[in-house]
Amino acid sequence: MFTGLSGFPITPFTDDQIDHSAYANLINRLADTQIDSICALGSTGLYPYLNTKEKEQAIQIAVEHAGHIPVLAGIGSLRLRDVLANAEQAEKLGVKGLLLAPLSYQRLTQEEVYELYRQVAEQVSVPICVYDNPPATHFTFTDELHTEIAKLEMIKSIKFPGMPFEKNGEQRIQQLKAILPSDVTIGVSGDVFAPSGIQSGCDIWYSVLAGLFPRTAQHIFYRAQQCNSKQATELSQKFDPLWVLFSENLGGMRVMASAAEILGYAEAPCLPSPLTGLNTESQAILHKLISELELI
Amino acid sequence: MFTGLSGFPITPFTDDQIDHSAYANLINRLADTQIDSICALGSTGLYPYLNTKEKEQAIQIAVEHAGHIPVLAGIGSLRLRDVLANAEQAEKLGVKGLLLAPLSYQRLTQEEVYELYRQVAEQVSVPICVYDNPPATHFTFTDELHTEIAKLEMIKSIKFPGMPFEKNGEQRIQQLKAILPSDVTIGVSGDVFAPSGIQSGCDIWYSVLAGLFPRTAQHIFYRAQQCNSKQATELSQKFDPLWVLFSENLGGMRVMASAAEILGYAEAPCLPSPLTGLNTESQAILHKLISELELI
Repeated sequence: MFTGLSGFPITPFTDDQIDHSAYANLINRLADTQIDSICALGSTGLYPYLNTKEKEQAIQIAVEHAGHIPVLAGIGSLRLRDVLANAEQAEKLGVKGLLLAPLSYQRLTQEEVYELYRQVAEQVSVPICVYDNPPATHFTFTDELHTEIAKLEMIKSIKFPGMPFEKNGEQRIQQLKAILPSDVTIGVSGDVFAPSGIQSGCDIWYSVLAGLFPRTAQHIFYRAQQCNSKQATELSQKFDPLWVLFSENLGGMRVMASAAEILGYAEAPCLPSPLTGLNTESQAILHKLISELELI
Repeated sequence: MFTGLSGFPITPFTDDQIDHSAYANLINRLADTQIDSICALGSTGLYPYLNTKEKEQAIQIAVEHAGHIPVLAGIGSLRLRDVLANAEQAEKLGVKGLLLAPLSYQRLTQEEVYELYRQVAEQVSVPICVYDNPPATHFTFTDELHTEIAKLEMIKSIKFPGMPFEKNGEQRIQQLKAILPSDVTIGVSGDVFAPSGIQSGCDIWYSVLAGLFPRTAQHIFYRAQQCNSKQATELSQKFDPLWVLFSENLGGMRVMASAAEILGYAEAPCLPSPLTGLNTESQAILHKLISELELI
């Protein structure tokens, strides 16, 4: 399940509540495109911002509308107690895989993070993807820690941050494959790095772009599989204006939220306070890019 | 109220629940020492780890046992909705001041943070301290943003991170006093920086040390007020082995939790999973330091 193209949709809000019909439409769109999995509550889906009831609503909608496409869900929380409750709820609602990031407010030690994964892995019945996302969690995994966690029975994938595959990608993948169990897949994230990551041998692309523009992401994914290193770089460069917009707006979430509003998939403003979408100027650039880059 | 010495106690847990009697004892201890305020739910008190019910319990205990000493409470949360609910609950329970940090998972813009404070400041009836704590919130305030937020009617203090007063402290305080309204107090945190901060003219010390060792912190506070710059540095240096332990353990929270266990103020383990206290070796060092530095 943790292979291929995985789409991370936004969770659209209206009046500070989940917009059920808008969210159902977004999931339908992903299901129609036949991507390999849908992550209902990724970082782009704002899982740490939702209360228990809202997480239940989002997962229910996603599972109902995903058809036969497996739904994943983020279960991270500051407390182990809450991570376990999130996992239990998600499993009951039919989720096929769990994404677990070591959320922190007080910084965590390598030992605490290992113990977190060990305890969660012991209690769940669906596989877990280790969500390694330093800009959001402020925790940095060592290779040694990844290796130890990956030995736990229910761990089946690692969602790496983008950077590790940017330079010497193939070498880095070989190195990871050598230290990780063979049934643990290696995932690239940070869409700008995806072509190089896929070309270098990553098993799965955990994609923000695919959450709203699944056909474009699918196209990039298939192309990247057939690229050499130079072509992969060029493939990413084609979308540079979009990656610049991601970067200028602290990541892809706000860009995708604004794109959903522009295209009528969500009502503006679709993010919960204090989060906001793009400013007017960036919205105009995005509007133009959607057609210029033929994002679909 | 936002002047003098403010103590930030831990919130002791037992079996992953708040240990009511241990917490009441800690608050009694602070009340006996007559420090100037008690922050019930600071970072050291793990406010983002507590659910609504636990926050209610902690504040109730703190207000009940603080006597006439004003109780402050942290109200930060990722969602504005939850910040407002935390504020409302804290006010109803008798809290006299609110600490608000711009918690983030998705990084926040300066505009979003201003708007967060503006909306909260409009709806509360007790004063707010701006909680500027980049290691925990991963948000960096500009001086311009501090100035704009400080103009809001209910903003009455800023808890600065330690660093700004380490070098050229007096100059920095003069600069801040010049750009901030005169009724907004300037607070130092990061206990290692406190003597220099106080000597340089900070109005309040938001202190982790004072949360468990209020008499020692009080002694440092009074001494620092009478120091010159060199003496303030020496005053801090006396406690260097303790600051080293703070730094090696990612901040003061784990050290204070272990100290509370060592001294019998809390049952071990007193932190909620995945957080853990000091390892055996560091505990032994701490045990020795408590008597060598005469921490009381």
